[in-house]
Amino acid sequence: MNKIKTLLFVILVASVSVNAQSIRSDLPLMPWPKEIKENATKFMIDSDLSISVNGEDHGRVRNAAVSFLRRLTDRTGVFLKEGFPVNNTDSQIQINFESVSNLNINDDESYFLVVTNDNIVINANTDIGALRGIQTLLQLVSYDEEGYYFPGVTIKDSPRFVWRGLMIDVARHFQPIDVLKRNLDAMASVKLNVFHWHLTDDQGFRVESKVYLKLHEKASDGLYYTQEQIKDVVAYASNLGIRVVPEFDIPGHATAILSAYPELGSIEGATYTVERNSGIFNPTLDPTNDKTYEFLNNLFKEITPLFPDEYFHIGGDENKGKHWDENKKIQRFKRKNKLKTNHDLQTYFNIKLEKTLNKLGKKLMGWDEIMTPNMPTTAIIHSWRGENEGFPTGGTLIDAAKNGYNTVLSAGFYIDRMLSIEHHYSVEPIGDVILTQEERSRILGGEATMWSELVTPLTIDSRIWPRTAAIAERFWSPKEVNDIDNMKDRLKEVSFRLEELGITHIKNRDVILRNMTNNKDINPLITLSKVCEPVKVYTRNEGGTEYKTFSPFTLFADACVTDAEDAALFNDVVSNFINEADNDNSIQVLSFLNKWSKNHDSFLKISNQPNVKPLEALSLNLSKVSTILVSAFTNKSLTNTDLEKLNSSSNILKKDHVDVELVIAESLQQLIKHCELSYLIQ
Amino acid sequence: MNKIKTLLFVILVASVSVNAQSIRSDLPLMPWPKEIKENATKFMIDSDLSISVNGEDHGRVRNAAVSFLRRLTDRTGVFLKEGFPVNNTDSQIQINFESVSNLNINDDESYFLVVTNDNIVINANTDIGALRGIQTLLQLVSYDEEGYYFPGVTIKDSPRFVWRGLMIDVARHFQPIDVLKRNLDAMASVKLNVFHWHLTDDQGFRVESKVYLKLHEKASDGLYYTQEQIKDVVAYASNLGIRVVPEFDIPGHATAILSAYPELGSIEGATYTVERNSGIFNPTLDPTNDKTYEFLNNLFKEITPLFPDEYFHIGGDENKGKHWDENKKIQRFKRKNKLKTNHDLQTYFNIKLEKTLNKLGKKLMGWDEIMTPNMPTTAIIHSWRGENEGFPTGGTLIDAAKNGYNTVLSAGFYIDRMLSIEHHYSVEPIGDVILTQEERSRILGGEATMWSELVTPLTIDSRIWPRTAAIAERFWSPKEVNDIDNMKDRLKEVSFRLEELGITHIKNRDVILRNMTNNKDINPLITLSKVCEPVKVYTRNEGGTEYKTFSPFTLFADACVTDAEDAALFNDVVSNFINEADNDNSIQVLSFLNKWSKNHDSFLKISNQPNVKPLEALSLNLSKVSTILVSAFTNKSLTNTDLEKLNSSSNILKKDHVDVELVIAESLQQLIKHCELSYLIQ
Repeated sequence: MNKIKTLLFVILVASVSVNAQSIRSDLPLMPWPKEIKENATKFMIDSDLSISVNGEDHGRVRNAAVSFLRRLTDRTGVFLKEGFPVNNTDSQIQINFESVSNLNINDDESYFLVVTNDNIVINANTDIGALRGIQTLLQLVSYDEEGYYFPGVTIKDSPRFVWRGLMIDVARHFQPIDVLKRNLDAMASVKLNVFHWHLTDDQGFRVESKVYLKLHEKASDGLYYTQEQIKDVVAYASNLGIRVVPEFDIPGHATAILSAYPELGSIEGATYTVERNSGIFNPTLDPTNDKTYEFLNNLFKEITPLFPDEYFHIGGDENKGKHWDENKKIQRFKRKNKLKTNHDLQTYFNIKLEKTLNKLGKKLMGWDEIMTPNMPTTAIIHSWRGENEGFPTGGTLIDAAKNGYNTVLSAGFYIDRMLSIEHHYSVEPIGDVILTQEERSRILGGEATMWSELVTPLTIDSRIWPRTAAIAERFWSPKEVNDIDNMKDRLKEVSFRLEELGITHIKNRDVILRNMTNNKDINPLITLSKVCEPVKVYTRNEGGTEYKTFSPFTLFADACVTDAEDAALFNDVVSNFINEADNDNSIQVLSFLNKWSKNHDSFLKISNQPNVKPLEALSLNLSKVSTILVSAFTNKSLTNTDLEKLNSSSNILKKDHVDVELVIAESLQQLIKHCELSYLIQ
Repeated sequence: MNKIKTLLFVILVASVSVNAQSIRSDLPLMPWPKEIKENATKFMIDSDLSISVNGEDHGRVRNAAVSFLRRLTDRTGVFLKEGFPVNNTDSQIQINFESVSNLNINDDESYFLVVTNDNIVINANTDIGALRGIQTLLQLVSYDEEGYYFPGVTIKDSPRFVWRGLMIDVARHFQPIDVLKRNLDAMASVKLNVFHWHLTDDQGFRVESKVYLKLHEKASDGLYYTQEQIKDVVAYASNLGIRVVPEFDIPGHATAILSAYPELGSIEGATYTVERNSGIFNPTLDPTNDKTYEFLNNLFKEITPLFPDEYFHIGGDENKGKHWDENKKIQRFKRKNKLKTNHDLQTYFNIKLEKTLNKLGKKLMGWDEIMTPNMPTTAIIHSWRGENEGFPTGGTLIDAAKNGYNTVLSAGFYIDRMLSIEHHYSVEPIGDVILTQEERSRILGGEATMWSELVTPLTIDSRIWPRTAAIAERFWSPKEVNDIDNMKDRLKEVSFRLEELGITHIKNRDVILRNMTNNKDINPLITLSKVCEPVKVYTRNEGGTEYKTFSPFTLFADACVTDAEDAALFNDVVSNFINEADNDNSIQVLSFLNKWSKNHDSFLKISNQPNVKPLEALSLNLSKVSTILVSAFTNKSLTNTDLEKLNSSSNILKKDHVDVELVIAESLQQLIKHCELSYLIQ
């Protein structure tokens, strides 16, 4: 090992440390490392490749090395002689680390990675750092006519934020263990390190309780995790260097709990049933009832040992206290305890919870509503309310840090809103705000939030990925790594590679389309899906009652994704064309228009399918607009009749169609305008 | 309920009972029911659809009804008002059953199913029968321009064989829980009722033991099932009406066990390591060592309670006793105990095991080598050796039945041999053999066997499905249901619908091809994959050492499947053309040839990919042959030079290419011959 370290030292001294933002290369690394220097060497991947792991405890790193060998083999098709790590300091890939981490927010995740012709070395202080380095190495795999290789690099890397999370809501739609595990694998591949598990809500209580059996028996429709399964997921995550922070959302979002134990509710004698719709509901725990605290004490005592992490998320969001207002006993309690508002009452509740959790060795975390004057600063404030909710950009993050709280940002990272990757990637958590060093250190990081009202195991991956990979870069890489086009280029490769980990975001599109067409030709729908995106920011399920939890999520909107592939290309091409209507740009525009013009003929062959029919107006009018535009461009001539047809069809295309929007509608409008100005026959 | 029964009675009386084989319809039912009568009514599927379950215990059937509603919703896109079964005897779908089954080979799985305009009734004696009926109902879903509906039918159904199994080998390649669960779902959908879980072999011991920790710690590479996971799988299967029969393969196939406990081996002082290759190996438990029995007694005592089924499979196959021959102590033991052959020694071992298992409440089952004169007839003989192994067609099944043993057939159902569905479907377990009623009753049924030397979680589904659906029909339906073309028509629909259950056999082809091309255009490879099949009957891994367990299974052969789609069509078309070279047939032949002729141009754009390159000879020569044939047919003329080129390319095409064979090579040869005879310019 000494020899290797000396070698490493020489290389490091020889390479000048370069700032991330000044490097632009073809390497599909994501998140982009802090410092990287490329060199001209090439480590060829052949059957002799072997790995040694050198460190105090091989658990996590050995597991990662085995997984590395499998992924490398499967990706490259190379038949290795040694399929497992070897105990041999002469092996070509050396992974060295000093200590084993306890997994907490003080973990050292830094690593050095050096690739040369004959050797690869990953050096890290902790096993977690080694894991991060192994993921970077896998992203480096390149190929040419000679075969697969690792390109020569020297990388020195560490994260900007210590808390880089993905929240998955398993309450609105239950997500089985395999969905979670494959998403944990994907998280690890982009160096996310917190899985925030939103386990309870109005629509379900997803944890087996051996103390309060009715919770999983009556409030889950049979869809819950056993305690053994929870331990399994937590261990799986730990093996990947990912902390698991559970959330039990209280005192609001509690319909499921109250459907099992109505006596804890704020309306005396009420009965509750598990909620099937989406939205904000009134059933709320009674914070004035001793039995509520007895229940929570017992439940947390039972549940907290399953989750070794020091943080425990109690939700605390979106409680307007309507049922508190309706209960005279609660009103009396407020007056007696000088609690003026429902918010004060909720703070009273939170502070009691905070003590309960402290006794169990846990620190409380909650959504930003919990930030009230009396809340102890040991709590973490999870900032979620942003412009949408009337809060400044960046949500309540900076306030929390200035108020002395550790804080995590989710405002701006609500991936369920189906906004573009550009939107999320551009959210800068701190921006130009000037903070003291202490305040800065309280900003732990951020979390993408996958609320699951409109996603099922079939579709959840395509809502999380690939956007969360770019968000992961926002959390890990230096602030200055912010070139959107460059990110998009790298994201294409990263997105494709997620399939290696079992992520279904690519392959399940066709599954949905095959189902829609009863296994007929899906190509016309693929063409449409590449220019359509699901409607955004909760307009799909306006009012929360169109879709129930058991409604179909196998519709065209479910096959569509954000950042629609052809739309992005076409919108660029049109923008170029409007700037300069030269031949090259014109050819590209026409190539798209011709495709859509012809697509409707294929569409008509499947339009008798019950679930295809509703797309007919979209397909027909896209074809009409494209056909007339092609003719206008080709003949350099547009009649008034055709212009009317264009405008009429264009207006139809601008509307929502079965929960999707045609995201090239504006570009088509520009082309119509262009034709009108250039070619209209007066 | 009385009202419903009366209604049902009237319908049943009105419909004449018809034998299965005389009915041929478009309904994609598989297995085909024993009796079916179609009527002109139509039950439209709309938001009012609701289900009631009426029976003693709602566990399994309620679960199946919920799953039915989800699948129906997802398939049809209908927004139901009630997403769960309702307690209402007026609901449109009534599921009635009398008693709850214990899950054993005496289960009554029969059901009646009646669909009319306004009502659907499933009547069954047991909950298991009701489950079978629900699966049939799901297969009935049809559609027209008005929407989705159930066509009117009266079905009276029950199985021919009581044991209808799928064996999955999780030792050679470990298969995670989600792979097993989705395959159990698929099994239930085609009414299979036994999951034979091959848990141990030379390549791995896949069960957590709390008594002998080294078994899972040292002999599984970390890939094993915890006892909790096993309970979970068994419960999941039971919920679907599927029994779970575990197999612990001994005394041979025991390298993994001996790598953990070498002291139980037949070579004193030997050390063993988990096997990475495929084949038959010599490490064998020592049947003369008391410690072996102590170990097995303790292990079985620990393990058997996890598996409630009355049968316990001990393997017992492929032990030649080489290590016994090498051990003088064992030789002395044989002489002392008058055991002449190694087979006698193994019988001695088996009989001791049989007693051990009996004490634990289990009956022994083993591969057909265990059938020796002294073996008690309480054992089940699992017939696997057929023509390949020098045994008569149908293996040892009939012998076993005549010898007084209950018996199960796997000879002919080895789906890992990559043979056609036609081959397996045509295996008739009993045939024209004349048996007494008692002998016939001993033939319990059969099992498809998925040995996993060459499959991983990525590919296993495409090796099991859709062929196992047709095998399931062989086990369930009357012997007379044997029309291969009709089966193939139905299988297309059944295969597609398996995707609804998460089976990955369709979608993972493209995953593999995307990986092979590093996400470039996969269409040229799709075209090739539709005329190529993996090489058959163990020629892929000749000698068992080319592929180790950790070798890549992400190659072109892994993307290919048996019964290649275009090959079947083309071979039919050529056969028609050779019979009658008319215009219609000629157009169809040319359409294929033109596709393959052009395909090589697209192929060349990806041929620089390291894992695509090895396919170049195949693609090039297929293109050459196709191009020359097109020209010959079009010009009605063939030069000698072209004929030579055809024959030269054709010879190349007949060879294996990277573990696949071009299964249209013979048809191409016929076309070449045809051209030579018709068009050659002398």
